[in-house]
Amino acid sequence: MTTATHRLEHDLLGDKEVPTTAYYGVHTLRALENFPITGITIAVYPDLVRALAQIKRAAAQANCELGLLERERMNAIVAACDELVAGRLHDQFVVDVIQGGAGTSTNMNANEVIANRALEIMGHARGEYGFLHPNEHVNMSQSTNDVYPTALKLATYVGIFRLVDAMAYLRAAFERKAEEFADVLKMGRTQLQDAVPMTLGQEFSTYATMLGEDEERLKEAALLIREINLGATAIGTGINAHPDYAGLVCRRLAEITGIPVVTAPNLIEATQDCGSFIQLSGVLKRVAAKLSKVCNDLRLLSSGPRAGFCEINLPPRQAGSSIMPGKVNPVIPEVVNQIAFEVIGNDMTVTFAAEAGQLQLNAFEPIIAHSLFKSVLHLTKGCVVLADRCVDGITANRDALRASVERSIGIVTALNPYIGYAHATDVAAEAHASGRGVAEIVLERGLMTAEALAEVLRPEVLTRPRALPVRPAGA
Amino acid sequence: MTTATHRLEHDLLGDKEVPTTAYYGVHTLRALENFPITGITIAVYPDLVRALAQIKRAAAQANCELGLLERERMNAIVAACDELVAGRLHDQFVVDVIQGGAGTSTNMNANEVIANRALEIMGHARGEYGFLHPNEHVNMSQSTNDVYPTALKLATYVGIFRLVDAMAYLRAAFERKAEEFADVLKMGRTQLQDAVPMTLGQEFSTYATMLGEDEERLKEAALLIREINLGATAIGTGINAHPDYAGLVCRRLAEITGIPVVTAPNLIEATQDCGSFIQLSGVLKRVAAKLSKVCNDLRLLSSGPRAGFCEINLPPRQAGSSIMPGKVNPVIPEVVNQIAFEVIGNDMTVTFAAEAGQLQLNAFEPIIAHSLFKSVLHLTKGCVVLADRCVDGITANRDALRASVERSIGIVTALNPYIGYAHATDVAAEAHASGRGVAEIVLERGLMTAEALAEVLRPEVLTRPRALPVRPAGA
Amino acid sequence: MTTATHRLEHDLLGDKEVPTTAYYGVHTLRALENFPITGITIAVYPDLVRALAQIKRAAAQANCELGLLERERMNAIVAACDELVAGRLHDQFVVDVIQGGAGTSTNMNANEVIANRALEIMGHARGEYGFLHPNEHVNMSQSTNDVYPTALKLATYVGIFRLVDAMAYLRAAFERKAEEFADVLKMGRTQLQDAVPMTLGQEFSTYATMLGEDEERLKEAALLIREINLGATAIGTGINAHPDYAGLVCRRLAEITGIPVVTAPNLIEATQDCGSFIQLSGVLKRVAAKLSKVCNDLRLLSSGPRAGFCEINLPPRQAGSSIMPGKVNPVIPEVVNQIAFEVIGNDMTVTFAAEAGQLQLNAFEPIIAHSLFKSVLHLTKGCVVLADRCVDGITANRDALRASVERSIGIVTALNPYIGYAHATDVAAEAHASGRGVAEIVLERGLMTAEALAEVLRPEVLTRPRALPVRPAGA
Amino acid sequence: MTTATHRLEHDLLGDKEVPTTAYYGVHTLRALENFPITGITIAVYPDLVRALAQIKRAAAQANCELGLLERERMNAIVAACDELVAGRLHDQFVVDVIQGGAGTSTNMNANEVIANRALEIMGHARGEYGFLHPNEHVNMSQSTNDVYPTALKLATYVGIFRLVDAMAYLRAAFERKAEEFADVLKMGRTQLQDAVPMTLGQEFSTYATMLGEDEERLKEAALLIREINLGATAIGTGINAHPDYAGLVCRRLAEITGIPVVTAPNLIEATQDCGSFIQLSGVLKRVAAKLSKVCNDLRLLSSGPRAGFCEINLPPRQAGSSIMPGKVNPVIPEVVNQIAFEVIGNDMTVTFAAEAGQLQLNAFEPIIAHSLFKSVLHLTKGCVVLADRCVDGITANRDALRASVERSIGIVTALNPYIGYAHATDVAAEAHASGRGVAEIVLERGLMTAEALAEVLRPEVLTRPRALPVRPAGA
Repeated sequence: MTTATHRLEHDLLGDKEVPTTAYYGVHTLRALENFPITGITIAVYPDLVRALAQIKRAAAQANCELGLLERERMNAIVAACDELVAGRLHDQFVVDVIQGGAGTSTNMNANEVIANRALEIMGHARGEYGFLHPNEHVNMSQSTNDVYPTALKLATYVGIFRLVDAMAYLRAAFERKAEEFADVLKMGRTQLQDAVPMTLGQEFSTYATMLGEDEERLKEAALLIREINLGATAIGTGINAHPDYAGLVCRRLAEITGIPVVTAPNLIEATQDCGSFIQLSGVLKRVAAKLSKVCNDLRLLSSGPRAGFCEINLPPRQAGSSIMPGKVNPVIPEVVNQIAFEVIGNDMTVTFAAEAGQLQLNAFEPIIAHSLFKSVLHLTKGCVVLADRCVDGITANRDALRASVERSIGIVTALNPYIGYAHATDVAAEAHASGRGVAEIVLERGLMTAEALAEVLRPEVLTRPRALPVRPAGA
Repeated sequence: MTTATHRLEHDLLGDKEVPTTAYYGVHTLRALENFPITGITIAVYPDLVRALAQIKRAAAQANCELGLLERERMNAIVAACDELVAGRLHDQFVVDVIQGGAGTSTNMNANEVIANRALEIMGHARGEYGFLHPNEHVNMSQSTNDVYPTALKLATYVGIFRLVDAMAYLRAAFERKAEEFADVLKMGRTQLQDAVPMTLGQEFSTYATMLGEDEERLKEAALLIREINLGATAIGTGINAHPDYAGLVCRRLAEITGIPVVTAPNLIEATQDCGSFIQLSGVLKRVAAKLSKVCNDLRLLSSGPRAGFCEINLPPRQAGSSIMPGKVNPVIPEVVNQIAFEVIGNDMTVTFAAEAGQLQLNAFEPIIAHSLFKSVLHLTKGCVVLADRCVDGITANRDALRASVERSIGIVTALNPYIGYAHATDVAAEAHASGRGVAEIVLERGLMTAEALAEVLRPEVLTRPRALPVRPAGA
Repeated sequence: MTTATHRLEHDLLGDKEVPTTAYYGVHTLRALENFPITGITIAVYPDLVRALAQIKRAAAQANCELGLLERERMNAIVAACDELVAGRLHDQFVVDVIQGGAGTSTNMNANEVIANRALEIMGHARGEYGFLHPNEHVNMSQSTNDVYPTALKLATYVGIFRLVDAMAYLRAAFERKAEEFADVLKMGRTQLQDAVPMTLGQEFSTYATMLGEDEERLKEAALLIREINLGATAIGTGINAHPDYAGLVCRRLAEITGIPVVTAPNLIEATQDCGSFIQLSGVLKRVAAKLSKVCNDLRLLSSGPRAGFCEINLPPRQAGSSIMPGKVNPVIPEVVNQIAFEVIGNDMTVTFAAEAGQLQLNAFEPIIAHSLFKSVLHLTKGCVVLADRCVDGITANRDALRASVERSIGIVTALNPYIGYAHATDVAAEAHASGRGVAEIVLERGLMTAEALAEVLRPEVLTRPRALPVRPAGA
Repeated sequence: MTTATHRLEHDLLGDKEVPTTAYYGVHTLRALENFPITGITIAVYPDLVRALAQIKRAAAQANCELGLLERERMNAIVAACDELVAGRLHDQFVVDVIQGGAGTSTNMNANEVIANRALEIMGHARGEYGFLHPNEHVNMSQSTNDVYPTALKLATYVGIFRLVDAMAYLRAAFERKAEEFADVLKMGRTQLQDAVPMTLGQEFSTYATMLGEDEERLKEAALLIREINLGATAIGTGINAHPDYAGLVCRRLAEITGIPVVTAPNLIEATQDCGSFIQLSGVLKRVAAKLSKVCNDLRLLSSGPRAGFCEINLPPRQAGSSIMPGKVNPVIPEVVNQIAFEVIGNDMTVTFAAEAGQLQLNAFEPIIAHSLFKSVLHLTKGCVVLADRCVDGITANRDALRASVERSIGIVTALNPYIGYAHATDVAAEAHASGRGVAEIVLERGLMTAEALAEVLRPEVLTRPRALPVRPAGA
């Protein structure tokens, strides 16, 4: 049945020729015909391929230990899986990232590649499934419905911690700037209107704190997705699985991956539930929204160079315009904004897909996977790019910033306790009408001495709580 | 300046007549003119009004302890706040739920109502702000920018635990049904196609487990929103606040509310950050999506009564049609579906508003509040209605369900280990072609004895893992 | 069966006491018990109540003309409907805005109120349905499934044109400002970086143009929702409806409402389809997103008053802060931003609900209605408020704006054709390094005469296309 | 400056080595470093590359006609552009699909590739920009801010009509099935409950009608995006563009593309506005939501094969399970559902990006482009796959469907006019209680003759409006 270029495989639809060079088989070929959607294959997610291999390896070990799988077959499967984990044969994962069938085709693709590579290792030809069968042996005690969500969780888990690292890297960049700008006084703003003074260091420190919090939230979300449902088989009842299998395969998988996976207490619920994916996506959306806010701020603070806020300078990274000589644009924050918008859209896709699950299974996990993988990956890239190509090179216009505080009317808030609310209001009104500075007017009116005023305007006094002079009742 | 019907108040825009009957003042009146959007006032959120009163009470106590507020004024403010907490004067909170100004008008509304009620308690007339001033005394050491988000958090915290209670109530209803239906065998389905058997009890138990998990997620999200920023004042630098104020007001607020509030470590970050709101909204979306999935299932399982799944019967709650005699529709799950859709939309609103914050403040917290309050309240109502008016009255079509298992082809999966894959496939093919039952064919072919078959088809055997007969290699 | 306070009514669930004062009946009472969700009744949407009355009136006329309904009953129904259209008895529409049952309860509520009012008009007591029955006569030839979506469409149609009027009103405000600011030169910005000059009038004219385009898009969307499905009855097959009914009731409805309604060509499709709602919602989202962008711009251009763009001044509308004397915030644009965020969230709700329709009906139209009504109403209010309380009072900082152009480096783009790209680049570099103005440097270097430079810097030259001097090849 | 492997290019950041083999230049290289996000290059959107080439060709022609560009350079540019349109050199478009800078890098990439290819055509080496310069000549009279949005519109326009064709192709498949199933009587359902009879042909005809409507909506949206802003240059004021350029380049572009492009009346508005993109995305969302609904229906109608609706059979396309012999899943509708979810998420991304535009430009058009291109392409693929691999092979279970009507209680609605509402209600009640059929009971009770009953139950009578017998008043 095998020619020079093709071998014949069989499934419930009949016979089909598979290229002899292919490690995948008939089920994968059917999927190729059925899902010609994006042209992007699941091989673009190496974490997913590795996770599948780790699961198949753990299952083979567990099955062997339970006496269900012969040692020779187990050894061959393990060896093939180890090659996949090492990065080989990923080009054989050819199913489209958008696919019907609840991930069945992805699972089948893995079963076939592993079986055929294991057959070679055993000294057989690809396709000689009588010696080792994709479904009978590689998939033993498994179902797509427990393998696929488990693989998503492993792959996402790894991706999340990579993202957490990237966020920590970006956070460190903000922290360095917070220190560098610790003594740069500037006006704080609420609702885009001048409010009261702060330091530029405080402003950048805020971004670091935000990121630190989000890192914690991501780690918490990661804890939720280490709960797996291996052993559930078709719908979570564990039909055709050995009673000891679920516990055993989970231990083996934890050893192989180093991820503290645990078996879900209710396997039926775990098989149909996408709650942890939707929650994780929500946390990614949180990260995205806040990163976007930070980038909005960076673009605003660097607006100008003349007719804008002009408080900070982003490092130039490319020419901004062919028509306007010397124009430089904030392209790095802009690309991060766009990643954020994509992540927010991905969250909507995940929400729709998660809600659409029916009865004992959610058939739409492939688009959940695709969306989550993109969000995690692009956010990771965005954080690194933002740190390396933007934050690290930011400089401050120190003199202009201090001048803006001295020129501000908002500074009068800090004088309230010293000159009284009535005087403060008068000073503010004159400042607004005349365009002059508050300090100048206060000195002119003899409301404070130059020394006392200078003391109050010291950054360390202006920018934190302080014990106030006692105000008379009714002031 | 006070007539029989009006008193004159003053703000930076000039004088304005306020009805003498009103406890609110000029700032609230301006807001009424500025925000004629929905016609729904913030009084529809009593938790918010109470939270504002609790904060004002805690601040008055802290200010008095720090020697900044006289005891008599403190006492009057405390007494007025206690009345609000007890539910009085809520009709004086007249600002629109959709409002500009980052919540300033809500805070002003609270300051004015409390000041005027406190003035009465002190024996003065409303509007005699020389004795006790809305901004100078009620708002002392505060800013909208710390009061408002703190009030949102308190109100939401209370609402979340009310929702958790409602979910537990619904969960208990599902658990009762899980027990009632523990021995009702039925076909499980994946991708809407017959899969393998399970019990109806297992199916309902799944819904209970889902809810239980979501209760835990909500409690975790609640922990995040008990972090407050009182003491931040305008932008988080604590300008014009006593260094001991933040710690003191937090302790007093915890005592008053019984909520374990803590002061955020970085008050500048906490003042501008909406991360906890977006995350909470994401968890509410998760709850909504899963409740919606459960309701989809209930509607599907009760579809019919003849040309549908017809597995369960929802209790009739109202006539379903004027034109079709006797038609009854699943109106309770349908209303919960719609609540879920609203919550998912609200999450998008929250996301947009959270992302739109700029620099030291998010001016869009009012729409975040409105969205969160609606989501929490409607989900709470939905859970109770679903329990009381639907789940409690569900009955099962036991005989039809068991017959569907016996009639199914999917049952052949369970026979695999006993008759072998080849025979199983033949039996399945004949069943499909002839429309006959698997059991009937198996018996007819003498593949199993009636006793052995009955044993395998026992619900407790079919619906959980079991030790399998040893299969020969290569089977 | 009727006591002093209650009358007894009957439905498929049995008997139920209805308050004698109520015009609604047993079906409405069931709905009150089943849907205690928001506490907001459908009476908040008077356009919906009027639309229901107009449909019932048209149906009664058509049924009478077809010989199916006696003239006396028809007359009574028509009289009752006319009262509803005139605004009476709206308080009898008590069903919750979020309700299960595909709108059945809303339709039942209308049938009952109209029947009982018609009974009074006929000289009978409420509840004497033997003389005129809510379902038999008021609902004759109808089903919720054709009445309810038709009512939504009529109500939305009216609301859209009210919104279009509000947008035109806002557009006119922008146009007046465009004219007022026609000669105010300023720097245009791309990516928040200084670009090339324009006039403030051009900037405001842009907002007017945007609104004008969106008005057109809304009118196009309105055309889509005038296609109705009256005559479809239960599922669109027209079961139990006279073959001439659909055409006749459509003509009568067009006469009554003045809206050019047409009957959908495929009534089965029209009964289940929510395409026009989702599209309308998408257009509302477009309007919202662009209004939000305009408000973002207004807030940005008025940022300051010192440490911001400070180009325009929004009229002060309320005190912005209790802690910061004299602070005024852009509260009107902020409230419009929030309306926009709500509308975008509503669109997501509509999308979810529309996608969730199954087979011959979409059961989730009530939440679609609620979402659309809110979006249309709030946008309408927002446009009027933005025009009246913000745009009309905007002033420009003319001198500062012109100075920003003269001070800009971007202006060098306009000199390119006169001094050549190489000189322009040198001038830009020196301006950036020294902080001096481009014009000053150009004059100092003798690159242009003061007259020639003044000519190029005339607003009418700078801000539109012009025939350029011929550039030598390779320049 | 040119070595064997690299040539030296220069931009405002300094010198940079470009591989000699590259047709792109320094600006593209900078973008490669700045945007390492997805690893997917803009070459995956050949429509975009072709559109850019068409625009550059039209601009070169217009510039030459206006005397601004020498004929030799024009000819070289035209020749280079024609090669790109023919599909060559697309691999030189290497910028990431997610990029900062409002599309500048995409425009620069096009300018550089065209310039270097044109240089070769002119007999020069790549990089000899003295002879023909990417910015000076290829980009003459242009700015990214008019070229990029115009290119998006051209590319999307082409894509939309490709999608319309795919939808028409799918519509034809549904129409063939509607004809094939025209006489297959079945129960219609509302709210998943049995309603009244219809034909399966009517059901499939509905899907065809839905698609036909959506095709019209897409064509309308296409009209909106043929409005371009070439001639706007930097911000829409047309700075440095000849007054006749905008009109001329538009005519040339229409000739080249065959697309009836028109110049926007307000170029400043057109340059910053993303309204047509957001509206188009909204229409794509509409298409997606409805396609998803159709696929939900197909999956529901084919649920089973035993414990489901079992009304239709989808053609098997691949094995559905390794663990369950013979299981086949509706993988084709499932993949289309997932495409729909992606499109809905993309719409959210587009909305966020469109709202985020500021002042004279929207910097986030690249993510709008990426989202729209994906939505259009995947929907196109999905429609074809759904037609070819699913709808075409659908068969009906005719006997079971007719039996379900005869067995139904809902059929009693059709008997109302003949046996009266009271009898109908009694019959329905007995049917429900006994599980027997309505027809059987009607005959047994002698309410109708077998002939009369058979007449009423004829599909052509049951499934459309009919003139009814006169009912006595009060019946």
